Amino acid sequence: MIDRVLSLLEEKRYPEVKKTFLSMHEADIAEIFDEVSDSETTLRLFRLIPKDNAAEVFSYLDADVQQRIIEALTDTELKYILDGMYLDDYVDMVEEMPANVVQRVMKNSSSKNRGLINQYLNYPEDSAGSLMTCEYVYLKKTLTVREAFTVIRNTGIDKETVYTCYVTSPERKLEGVVSVLELLLADPDKRIGDIMTTSPICVHTMDDKEDVAKMFSHYDLIALPVVDKEERLVGIITVDDAVDVLQEENTEDFELMAGMSPSEGTYLKTSVWSLAKNRILWLMILMVSAMITGSLLESYEAAISAIPLLVTFIPMLMDTGGNSGAQATTMIIRGLALDEIELKDVFRVWWKEVRVAATVGVALSAVNFLRIVIQYHSDPNCVRIALTVSLTLIATVFIAKSLGCLLPMLSKKLHLDPAVVAAPMLTTITDACSILVFFNIAIGLLGQLM
Amino acid sequence: MIDRVLSLLEEKRYPEVKKTFLSMHEADIAEIFDEVSDSETTLRLFRLIPKDNAAEVFSYLDADVQQRIIEALTDTELKYILDGMYLDDYVDMVEEMPANVVQRVMKNSSSKNRGLINQYLNYPEDSAGSLMTCEYVYLKKTLTVREAFTVIRNTGIDKETVYTCYVTSPERKLEGVVSVLELLLADPDKRIGDIMTTSPICVHTMDDKEDVAKMFSHYDLIALPVVDKEERLVGIITVDDAVDVLQEENTEDFELMAGMSPSEGTYLKTSVWSLAKNRILWLMILMVSAMITGSLLESYEAAISAIPLLVTFIPMLMDTGGNSGAQATTMIIRGLALDEIELKDVFRVWWKEVRVAATVGVALSAVNFLRIVIQYHSDPNCVRIALTVSLTLIATVFIAKSLGCLLPMLSKKLHLDPAVVAAPMLTTITDACSILVFFNIAIGLLGQLM
Repeated sequence: MIDRVLSLLEEKRYPEVKKTFLSMHEADIAEIFDEVSDSETTLRLFRLIPKDNAAEVFSYLDADVQQRIIEALTDTELKYILDGMYLDDYVDMVEEMPANVVQRVMKNSSSKNRGLINQYLNYPEDSAGSLMTCEYVYLKKTLTVREAFTVIRNTGIDKETVYTCYVTSPERKLEGVVSVLELLLADPDKRIGDIMTTSPICVHTMDDKEDVAKMFSHYDLIALPVVDKEERLVGIITVDDAVDVLQEENTEDFELMAGMSPSEGTYLKTSVWSLAKNRILWLMILMVSAMITGSLLESYEAAISAIPLLVTFIPMLMDTGGNSGAQATTMIIRGLALDEIELKDVFRVWWKEVRVAATVGVALSAVNFLRIVIQYHSDPNCVRIALTVSLTLIATVFIAKSLGCLLPMLSKKLHLDPAVVAAPMLTTITDACSILVFFNIAIGLLGQLM
Repeated sequence: MIDRVLSLLEEKRYPEVKKTFLSMHEADIAEIFDEVSDSETTLRLFRLIPKDNAAEVFSYLDADVQQRIIEALTDTELKYILDGMYLDDYVDMVEEMPANVVQRVMKNSSSKNRGLINQYLNYPEDSAGSLMTCEYVYLKKTLTVREAFTVIRNTGIDKETVYTCYVTSPERKLEGVVSVLELLLADPDKRIGDIMTTSPICVHTMDDKEDVAKMFSHYDLIALPVVDKEERLVGIITVDDAVDVLQEENTEDFELMAGMSPSEGTYLKTSVWSLAKNRILWLMILMVSAMITGSLLESYEAAISAIPLLVTFIPMLMDTGGNSGAQATTMIIRGLALDEIELKDVFRVWWKEVRVAATVGVALSAVNFLRIVIQYHSDPNCVRIALTVSLTLIATVFIAKSLGCLLPMLSKKLHLDPAVVAAPMLTTITDACSILVFFNIAIGLLGQLM
């Protein structure tokens, strides 16, 4: 479909592009803009979108495309688009724009929207307040069901979701919710106050947006009311925004766990410089730590000169330690993120990892022992070397799995993101441990040769 | 709240438990069962749930708790619970149960449900069919809006979501959708056929459930119709199930990327044995690969004996290579999973990584060069050693970043999960490369000393 539109566009068959747009979803139309890079074509393409869909397509566009379009549209066109957008998309857009574009947007916003946007921009980026929209249906509890339907009919068309209506007191305090299904099934003369569900699940404007997103999957919700400090209803959050937050938080965890600062945009739109900047800090910290680990080897120069074979086991010990730790830490960080593991489970978790470490460690050691004894059977010390390697391996796996579960939990306890003590940092720590253990066991078992 | 119920239960204050349940959400009641381990208390607690909520609480329980309850309930009680469950939860439950429990469930199911479950169990686990529910509202296009409301009123109470109604032909082919909002805003005498949206977005029963879940976040949907090969409507998928799929797929990627086979249940409920089993395969493969890397060092024994200092740089080179690769591969795997990167972008992606590698590699090398020259300034060869390490580092970062972006894309091209060529495997490959590069440069620059 996208390719078809692009080729129609190239051949300047504009009426056909327009016709194709009629049968396409707004999200798909927005995707076409990713393939267009010059401002002129972008604008031409945007003007071919049916008027009724333009605002919605615009909401789906990436910030850089939105900016290009805002800069090119006339004031009248811009006003039309802005008026058609949902407030939460509007706020998202304004947050991404540079100051001069924001100015142009604000100039073309209705004074009501201007006021609302200013208010919304004051919520911290990670708060529930920054996610919400104020476009919802609210009802008084003294209304009848029949009157409620009239309210929905009159205001519904502008609302992001009308299927849950919020019942508020004259002071705008949230008193209850009623679903459209309940309204449909109720006697039209009943009062809203009699059929509403009281004390509904709600969140506060300053709640963390990740926690809010998790509530959607915990309670299977499609919308959630947001109240301020005085328990007054100020907005709602819809499930589509919650899904976006979940995906963003997952991406952030993936990035942190690979030793990177989280990035804002998508990979292809992030500049080389930003990518490098996000990566260099952890690489540098970890490199310096690994230098220190390396320096440990200097103290064992005598051992290495006496038995050069020992050096050949270092990569295997380091990698296995790193991998064992990465497995444990990933399971724990994920478990904490999904609330499947809580801090009070720390002993259970550690005991589990100890037993896993024992099982895995013994199996890996056995394979190593056999391979060393077989490969170096001509060496009179082969059994002692094999024993050194195998014992180090068990110790390394034990240390890696223990730290792998304890460090993320400690980090959570200290109110840090558990994902920062993931594989990269753990590898560096277990590397140092395994080298120390290895040479100390070697000196114990093979000391007479050194 | 959970602690309060548990202490009330311990003091046998059952009427108060019952009263507390009345004000709790079903998902929260279900959480209490995680804290109870014996079957008798589980059953007692379950019987205290208000009758109207019991089926829904049951749907939220973990499979092992469900099984314990099914085994303990009387036939009458079981039948009551099963009748109250949504079909998709019902199917999920049956999929998790051992054969003897399934038999008991089937015996107590209505014949209609039995038939449907058998049909649903035939869909592959990863297909859209396995996610769907058949509880939705369908309308004929000849109905008026007024008549449509009667249909919704009569059937709506059993439906998981009534806010999108599906319009089907007499052969059950999907012809359009109409939202309750559209019905509310329409003239009551209009025909459904005139107000419905034709050719709605839909999926096929055999579509991959991950793709289906992504459609929800792409199009901001709350429900999606599912059709069979003949384009007949057979069910719908709701957004709550799509969110669960997204989270499961993310967890699976986290596990694969840390070198583990994906696990089925939550961490705390997975046995030590299963955890060990999921981890050992990759640990073993990677260990054997690292052994081979280690063996490479044997060929450089002369170099190591001549300049033992060289060994101390190995941990730093290995770790930095591993970390650089992990960063690239994580960004690419995540980008592929979110459809932000496509296979056709392979050259753009690689070129980006090359430039990042150059920036990062030069910075890291510079730091290394300075530290070696300063730390070992008394060694007459310190500049040449520093140069060896720095050049190796640049090469390692380049190799790691290149493979880190190319391997996941190659893996996708071969229809494998890109997440399997993540950090652990990449570390092993770059380790071998960096050791080869390091000693070859060393022999070139410092050969006269060996």
